[in-house]
Amino acid sequence: MNSGKPRLTLYLVTDGRFITPGDKRGSLVDVVKMAIDGGVTAVQYREKEANTRVMVNEAEVLRRLCADQGVLFLVNDRIDVALAVDADGVHLGQDDMPVPIARKLLGPKRVIGVTVHNLDELKKAEDEGADYVSFAPVFATQTKPDHQRPLGVKGLSELVRHASVPCVAIGGINESNATDVFATGVDGICIVSAIMGADDPKEAARNLLKSVKTVRGFPST
Amino acid sequence: MNSGKPRLTLYLVTDGRFITPGDKRGSLVDVVKMAIDGGVTAVQYREKEANTRVMVNEAEVLRRLCADQGVLFLVNDRIDVALAVDADGVHLGQDDMPVPIARKLLGPKRVIGVTVHNLDELKKAEDEGADYVSFAPVFATQTKPDHQRPLGVKGLSELVRHASVPCVAIGGINESNATDVFATGVDGICIVSAIMGADDPKEAARNLLKSVKTVRGFPST
Repeated sequence: MNSGKPRLTLYLVTDGRFITPGDKRGSLVDVVKMAIDGGVTAVQYREKEANTRVMVNEAEVLRRLCADQGVLFLVNDRIDVALAVDADGVHLGQDDMPVPIARKLLGPKRVIGVTVHNLDELKKAEDEGADYVSFAPVFATQTKPDHQRPLGVKGLSELVRHASVPCVAIGGINESNATDVFATGVDGICIVSAIMGADDPKEAARNLLKSVKTVRGFPST
Repeated sequence: MNSGKPRLTLYLVTDGRFITPGDKRGSLVDVVKMAIDGGVTAVQYREKEANTRVMVNEAEVLRRLCADQGVLFLVNDRIDVALAVDADGVHLGQDDMPVPIARKLLGPKRVIGVTVHNLDELKKAEDEGADYVSFAPVFATQTKPDHQRPLGVKGLSELVRHASVPCVAIGGINESNATDVFATGVDGICIVSAIMGADDPKEAARNLLKSVKTVRGFPST
């Protein structure tokens, strides 16, 4: 994996549904920019509704923004979009491209992250060469309506204990629980609504990063 | 383009919405198989609703089926899926991946087809290196709700006259009008509902091919 663990620390997953018409915060790109200013270390572009051309255009802008700021840039699901904009890698769900095919298309250097819900999926992802895994969902969340039963902090801790690759967690993580989640030993926390839906995405990111740093002394990010 | 013009002659575009639960004709793959038995020379896998894993699995089966029968196999929009199953190429709409990026990802040998609605789009597609174009829509159709104003046979003829790459036509083409469409000089006709929705896809394909052959003496396909 060509990114160090610290780059996963505060991991933003985009969701265009949080950008309302005439949003005072600006566009999706503006919100991501604010979040990076606040300390986000990785950005995953997740877009399920737009057409491919819109996705490529948006991803291209985000990719440049992240590259300029030393932020890891990944694309959810769409390997075509990731290759088109020369992203650092992709994040794959269990219903996305199988990891072995993804690796063939992306080459050895690009990052492949995989969402896993249990021990079996964790072992499979590791065997297939995932560079990191994302445990999901920690808590109940509205942003992924089809999610599985929440792991809770206890279930998450159990999975983290078995992980041999870097790992992050996703699902309902916000300022109120970020410390507990980080204390399980994950290398990063994935945030959707607590940043994408925040009035001040920069402040939200800064506060989340502060919570994280109370748990472990991280390299300056 | 590594396919001869005749391979575009009877061009099936798949649409999973025509496969009803408990469909007597079988699965999407079964319907495509019958259509190939009836004489289809090209298959474009178009799937807008399934997740990537389902698409890859389905496309993989169709790709093998087509390869066995010498039928051109293309994937609509999704370059990742096309690469995953080693398809012969892709078909791109105006809202899909820009042709120059697609060419970079697919290499010089794979086929890139582009949907065009007017002279400007035709010239752009040709300049960007499309291997063939698809004029759309000839007639009104329900399978693409967002389509533009129908070209009609006259509008189609005008576009065909200006095309310097092989061209096909799509939109509401069926047995009753296939001869008129073919008489405009197109190299092939694209069929969705007239085959995907036919009680007997093999017979439908055979009849469409017969109509085509009344217009021009095609090499035996």
